[in-house]
Amino acid sequence: MKLYTCTGAPSPRRVTLYLQAKGIEIDQIEVDLKAGEHLSADFLAKSPDGTVPLLELEGGDYLWDSMAIRRYLEDRFPEPALMGTTAESRAEVLQWSNWVIGQGLQAVAEAFRNKFSGFKNHALTGTRPTPQIEALAERGLARYPYFLDDLESRLQSVPFVGGQHFSIADIDALVTMEFAAEAIKIAPGEGHSTVLNWQARINDRLETDRRGQG
Amino acid sequence: MKLYTCTGAPSPRRVTLYLQAKGIEIDQIEVDLKAGEHLSADFLAKSPDGTVPLLELEGGDYLWDSMAIRRYLEDRFPEPALMGTTAESRAEVLQWSNWVIGQGLQAVAEAFRNKFSGFKNHALTGTRPTPQIEALAERGLARYPYFLDDLESRLQSVPFVGGQHFSIADIDALVTMEFAAEAIKIAPGEGHSTVLNWQARINDRLETDRRGQG
Repeated sequence: MKLYTCTGAPSPRRVTLYLQAKGIEIDQIEVDLKAGEHLSADFLAKSPDGTVPLLELEGGDYLWDSMAIRRYLEDRFPEPALMGTTAESRAEVLQWSNWVIGQGLQAVAEAFRNKFSGFKNHALTGTRPTPQIEALAERGLARYPYFLDDLESRLQSVPFVGGQHFSIADIDALVTMEFAAEAIKIAPGEGHSTVLNWQARINDRLETDRRGQG
Repeated sequence: MKLYTCTGAPSPRRVTLYLQAKGIEIDQIEVDLKAGEHLSADFLAKSPDGTVPLLELEGGDYLWDSMAIRRYLEDRFPEPALMGTTAESRAEVLQWSNWVIGQGLQAVAEAFRNKFSGFKNHALTGTRPTPQIEALAERGLARYPYFLDDLESRLQSVPFVGGQHFSIADIDALVTMEFAAEAIKIAPGEGHSTVLNWQARINDRLETDRRGQG
């Protein structure tokens, strides 16, 4: 297997942090997004929308959806479980991970890709030209703080985003918050003390996993 | 278990067609979206964003994400498999189902919810006011045909959206096309003959399932 990735981009990080937390080692190939390598004919033949992460399977098939890549790896490498272990917890983790993406990551991406000049005519991924929409950038900025408020409520009732155990929902929320701090300069603040405590705990945990493989 | 649903709305139909294809019978409770029943305090206590479908589990927990609801039911009722049977096929079905939602259903929803007066200040689900963005409605209308073009290519290489077998990816694509025909008046046409053949096959199959339970 090979993982095509780009250090620093949020979607690949949803997978690379997962690999780190699982202790899975896969050959990683860096794709130069700034140079447009993801829109080359060669890469588009592997990833129809020109996105990373992209997982090349041993049989030569490709997976280019971050959730599907982790679903595949979780089946291949069940321990430690990061996507639930029962019908209920598997559904809960998937639900909250999808919630983080829809309410959090997508809000940040809308704000970022519809505003910054580097994405002119590329407000969506893929090769088809998509003009930026200023009002959509504003909507993303306006709604991202709601995500932090709702995450605060969630973490007041359960220790992890996906429920009782550390999971990909925590990874996705952490990546979303890193992306927001970097791309749109919004961080948790007053009223988000539970989120800040959770973030410190998750970062400690991931750092321990990283050192364990060092 | 109980399923809160609304006949005719696309997201609940992703689950009710799944139940029909699986032969699973669950008590269904109709929620009156036009009367705003989904935004009542009682319903919001069950479904944080006020959305249907909503599955109430025997233990009293709730699932409100269409993919998570089907993930849960698939674990409880594995046969007939509609979400893949191997690590590869489970990932492929999830990937293509997510693709249908992101490229197809979301384009239609953007076009519909940002244009029609019934969604004024409710361009997104939930209780927080979200103004409509005319340019986003236009973008949805412009990009939905790309989904049909790309689905045509996909179905020229495999018999079903999720690969070699009928799956939830077919259900999601069928629901998306019904929603597009109704809400934004765009149907497959010239250049989509493979999609039209596939649609006829899937409808026949679902009709047979329905009669089998009649």
